Parts: sequence; C-alpha cells; structure tokens
Amino acid sequence: MKTIDGGVTAAKGYQAASVAAGVKYQNRKDMALIYSEVPCVVAGTFTRNVVKAAPVRWDQDVVKNSKSVQAIVTNSGIANACTGEMGMQNNKAMAEAVAKKLNITADMVLTASTGEIGRQLNMEAINNGVPQLVESLSDTIEAGTLAAQAIMTTDTCKKEAAVQFEIDGKTVTVGGMSKGSGMIHPNMGTMLAFLTSDIAISKELLQEALYEDVQNTYNMISVDGDTSTNDSCFLLTNGMAGNAAIVEKNDNYYKFVEALRIVNTTLAKSMAADGEGATKLLEVNVVNAASKEEAVTLGKSVATSSLVKTAVYGNDANWGRILCALGYAGVDFDPEKVDLYIESADGKLKLVEDGVATGYSEEIATKILSGKEVCATVDMKMGEATATAWGCDLTYDYVKINADYRS
Amino acid sequence: MKTIDGGVTAAKGYQAASVAAGVKYQNRKDMALIYSEVPCVVAGTFTRNVVKAAPVRWDQDVVKNSKSVQAIVTNSGIANACTGEMGMQNNKAMAEAVAKKLNITADMVLTASTGEIGRQLNMEAINNGVPQLVESLSDTIEAGTLAAQAIMTTDTCKKEAAVQFEIDGKTVTVGGMSKGSGMIHPNMGTMLAFLTSDIAISKELLQEALYEDVQNTYNMISVDGDTSTNDSCFLLTNGMAGNAAIVEKNDNYYKFVEALRIVNTTLAKSMAADGEGATKLLEVNVVNAASKEEAVTLGKSVATSSLVKTAVYGNDANWGRILCALGYAGVDFDPEKVDLYIESADGKLKLVEDGVATGYSEEIATKILSGKEVCATVDMKMGEATATAWGCDLTYDYVKINADYRS
Repeated sequence: MKTIDGGVTAAKGYQAASVAAGVKYQNRKDMALIYSEVPCVVAGTFTRNVVKAAPVRWDQDVVKNSKSVQAIVTNSGIANACTGEMGMQNNKAMAEAVAKKLNITADMVLTASTGEIGRQLNMEAINNGVPQLVESLSDTIEAGTLAAQAIMTTDTCKKEAAVQFEIDGKTVTVGGMSKGSGMIHPNMGTMLAFLTSDIAISKELLQEALYEDVQNTYNMISVDGDTSTNDSCFLLTNGMAGNAAIVEKNDNYYKFVEALRIVNTTLAKSMAADGEGATKLLEVNVVNAASKEEAVTLGKSVATSSLVKTAVYGNDANWGRILCALGYAGVDFDPEKVDLYIESADGKLKLVEDGVATGYSEEIATKILSGKEVCATVDMKMGEATATAWGCDLTYDYVKINADYRS
Repeated sequence: MKTIDGGVTAAKGYQAASVAAGVKYQNRKDMALIYSEVPCVVAGTFTRNVVKAAPVRWDQDVVKNSKSVQAIVTNSGIANACTGEMGMQNNKAMAEAVAKKLNITADMVLTASTGEIGRQLNMEAINNGVPQLVESLSDTIEAGTLAAQAIMTTDTCKKEAAVQFEIDGKTVTVGGMSKGSGMIHPNMGTMLAFLTSDIAISKELLQEALYEDVQNTYNMISVDGDTSTNDSCFLLTNGMAGNAAIVEKNDNYYKFVEALRIVNTTLAKSMAADGEGATKLLEVNVVNAASKEEAVTLGKSVATSSLVKTAVYGNDANWGRILCALGYAGVDFDPEKVDLYIESADGKLKLVEDGVATGYSEEIATKILSGKEVCATVDMKMGEATATAWGCDLTYDYVKINADYRS
C-alpha cells in the first residue's frame, strides 16, 4: 500500500479540468469536471439532511438507476439548495450541457454544487463554463489538483490523496479530492468528496465498501455541528487497472478497502484540520467503550463541543469540558472510571485518572496542546470498542468567516 | 398576574446574603445564601449529564428524601464537578457548616456550585464565608439582588424575576434568580436557578408544576450546546402567603403555574440573551408542527446552530442556514412547504415561502436583524403544535471568553 502524489487523476483513464466561470466568485476557478475515458461503476453516499440540494436529488437517482457514469461536473459559490423546481431544472440543464459536449447521456453525469444556500445558479456562467471545461480536460496530476482547488469555498487549501497497491501483478490506484470547510458535520457522506479508481469491481461491493468506510472517516469529522444540505461522496471505478473483477469479499477486496480507508481518512482529516478558522486538528480517540456505537457517540460529542474546541484554541487543558461532553453524549458510564490523555508532537500526558485530575503540570499540558495536531484519548474501561473522531478548534476566524460569509 | 421588582426575597419569609469569600475569585462576591424563616416544601430538577457535580448528587438526595428544606448555599468560581470522593466530602461539609450556624439539620440545606470543573473547593474560604453569610441575612430586595450577583461567573448581568397574584384574597409571590452564561444547553434543569414562593402547595404538585414548566423554559435555551454538569433548578415554597394549601389541579394551581411560567421564562430568556459573548437574543418560534416533540426538536436545532448564530451576529439574512438546521434536526418534513419570517422591534419580514426566497429586501432584513431581540418564526404547515426556543448570537467574545476562561 503506497501513498502517491495526486488525486482524482491518479488512477488510469481519468481526466480533469477547471475554469473560472464566474458562477458567483470573480477571478477564481469555480467549476470543475472529472471525466473517465470509459464508463464507470459508481457508488455514492449523500447527506441525511431532510433539506437536500438539487444536485443531491439528481445524483441519488443517477447512483441508483444509471448503468454507468462517466463524468462529474461541479461548481462552487452557489449550493443550489432551497431553490425549488427552478433549482432542479438548472441542475438538469448543467448535466445535459456536459453530456451533450462529451457525447454521452445526461444520466451518466453526476453533479455537485457548494456555496451559498437559497440562490439560483447563474446559468449563463455555467453554460459558458461547460465547453471550456470539456475542451481543457487533461489526465495530468496538475489538472486534478486544479480541479480540487476549483471546488474550494472557505477552504484554505486543496484536499487530495492517492494510494497504489497491486492485485495479481496489476497496479491499482485509488485517488480522490474533497472540500470543506464549514457546515461540516457529515451524516452519510460529506460536503463533496470525489473518489476515482481504476479497479474492476462489482457495483454492490463498491457501494458496500464506500458506505462502510464513510462511517469511519467523513462521518467522524465535525467543524461546526451543522450537517450540510449538499454532502455528497462519489466513488467511480473504471476497471482500467486490468485486474480480474472483484465480485466477492476476498483478499483483493480487503486490499481495496484498505486503500479506500487511507484515502478517505486523509481527506477527512484534511477537512477537519482546515475547518473554518481552525488553527489545529483535534483527534479524539475513545478506547475500551462498551460498544462501537457508544464509542462513536462519545467521540463525536467531544469533537463537537464548542467549549472543548475553544479550550483547544486557547491551549488550555480544561479537561472538565471533555468529561462534561462525554457526560451529555447520551451514553451511560461511570465518570469515576474514566482516564484521559492528551498527546501531540510535543509529548503525551495523563490528565485524568478515575475521573479526577492526576496533578499534571499545566505548563507541559499547554505545550502539548500548542501542537498543530492534538490528540485526546479517553479510556472508558467498559469494554473493547474504539472510535476516532476528528474536529478542530473554534476560533475568532470561525466567527469572522461566518458572520459575513455572503458579503 | 403582576410583575414586581426583586427575586428570591420577593416572597414572604425569605432572606438572602452574599459575601466575597475568595473561593477562587478575589475582590468579588462569590458565595450566597438563601434562607426561609420556616421550613419549605421543595421541588428540584437537575442535569441529565452522566457526569454530575457533587452538589447535584447531594441535592438529588435532599429533594427526594428530606421532609423539608430551609436553606440554599452556593458558590461561584469552582463547580465542584469531577472531584471524586473529596468533592462529595467538601460539599457535605459546606452544607453542615451552614446547618450548624442556622441551627437546622444538614439535610435541610441545598448546595450549588458553579465555575471551573475539576478543581477541589477551597474549604478555608468556604468555612470563612459561611458565618458571614448567616450573620448578614436580610429580607430586603437588595439582599436578593446581591445574592443574584454573587452567583455570576461569565454572566454580565444578574438575572431576577418576580410575579404576584391573588388566591382567595391572599397575595402570593413567586420570585427567582438564575445565572448562565456558558455551558448552557440545559436538559432537565438549568445551570442554577433558585425559585422561592410563599404559596402553600403539596410537594407532588410542586414537583409536577416545576418539571412541566422547565421543559418549556430552561430546557428551551441554548448558548453553546454544552449541557452542564451542574444544572440545578430549585423551587422552595414556605406557605407563608396563608392560602389554603393547594392539593389538586384547581384554578389556583393553574394561577401558580402561570406565575411560575412568567418567572422562569423571564429568567431563561435573560440567560440566553446574556449568553457568553452574546450581543443579542435569538428567539425561534416553530408553528404548525406535527407534534410538540417535533416542534421542540426543530426549534432547538435552529437556536443551537453555530452557522445560524454567526449569521445573526453578522445581521445577515442567510436563511438557508435556518432551513439547513431544520433539515438535520431529525424530523421528517417537506422543505418545499416551509415559510420563514424574521421580526424585531425594527419590523417583520417574510423571507421564505414554500421553501424558496420571497424576493425580500436584503436591506430591510439586515435592519430587522440588527435589533437586540431577533425572532425567527418557522411555519411547518404540518399540524398545530408550537414551541419556542431561545439562543443568542455566536461572537468573537464567545471565543475570547472560552479560549482563556481559566486564566
């Protein structure tokens, strides 16, 4: 299992393009296209928000009913959510424009939008952008990177990851890109993650592999507790690696699952670390919980707590807030059994033993919390289940970004 | 039903005192005592957080098992939560010191602490403060107000309310005080609300009246989504109004319930409006929901959303965030039926009709949102249930206060 450069164009047969179409932003790339030279098997997971954006409703139909998929078209700036019937029509028109230019059918095109909710797409910009996208498609690593940049909204950096491994002497690649960085508390998918692979695999196994992995990656991150209207995660596979198609859960399937896990974990952590206004990544490990479900609930409760997040920003070992967030998670446990550790590149420290302070050094604790990646490990001493959640600190800049996001 | 000045000393037979004991803060009042001249019937509701502070565990026992209660002793600065066996011992010692000085038994003394979690009480300060408290007890309105100030932590103003009404020619008073203003997302009680009344009523009806009212008042506010380890709400009644004791749900009972509702609503709204760093109160009315439970869930989801709260801070009519927060609340509904209005002293405006923008004026919307009390009304068009939730905006100062709360 080897980590390599690149993202959506890392696997064989994928091309990408990006363009500054002027959907909302001026003078920056805001549309991207991902294209496979041959039709792909597709899997997808989507937001569980009752309020679903037009592209999510379109894509759910495509993933369920289309025999194959060959392109993903996406824009940033406007989310095409809460836009009613006109929003659905505009989204369809975007897919149709891409299909026509690529000479495929519209039901082979996935769509994704991200940005302001409630505003209609600027179709003049979209129609202007689509031909430029198709004409500039390229299979270079750089083309993928530029596409990853084009889907950014309040993100401060692009998110890409790719992994290679072998199946029966054939090289298989899994790559992807994603974006955050506000309204991030995914439930079932995440706010735009596009994954591509050249593996040959059945649709059923592809969907299962993606669904299972999303539970442990994107669904375990939170920036602000707000589950988006647009969360979408696509996984396209075009079979161009040349392996014998995977149709059962054999060793090759689990190699693929492992590759997927690495790519998705990398992208998910990147999204948490680049949460709006964030200065650091917060990882919460829950160990020895009574069940996986409880471990997940406890971990997410801590990673989502505004008081924990502000304490992490202030490099303040205010561990009572962590115990408090465990306590209101909705899981029953004995507070007087809990141990708590913090860790970063600057060291590791036990703050709490059996529910009370250990008499640790505040100075050392502050130093550890000053790291760029801070990890809190909670030992529940109840069973053997574990879970990891990722979040970020809550800062002045989060408020700044969101108090005038639209202006 | 008449609103009057004062708080815990407004009703007949109640005295209060406060003192700067130096529990943690220097040079400010940090202990308070509330005392009834005669034994009281008591009702209480407490946090559902699994991690319960020592005073909460003490009080749950007192409310359940004591025949009567006569005093509440409280400190700010240290929460006496996550303090293990020593925390329980210190709390008991505080109750015993008060009991001894007042010549009552310790099981007639309720305790409450608020402040930093995980640190042991400074018993030298407590033992120093208790005699001063008892010696300075007074039944004046001012004594109650000073007690309300003494329990403040990050609060910027004291919270008091009192109401008077008549039962069979006897004047009955219900008064109270409370404090916030962070870790506020009460579940079953709130972070310290003390209510006193001179009504004569049975313990069963008192508990029922309090429990029911808390669901619609304290449990409907949120500052930061964090349910505290210390939430406690006490209601003491000493019967000194001289009314015939209420032992059934007659008109007099419902008058009392109405008075309780006014006092608790006033205190709850004060806590939300004075949320850490808040510049304004956000009221969320959900109307025409399918059930009360769904109305509550939807209202709290909107009032708790970080993205809604930052938009309110920025006077930005970013209504998509409100629909988004409704959408992930866990309630099923048709987004294309929802209407949304905003209102403040500066006017009222319909932003959304049937799930899409009305074409409202952004300028007028910004003016309305600039008010000190902003109300959002969501019409679900599903049934007849309603609920009101209260929150506040999320500001730079919330981050500032909580990034270095302990320092």
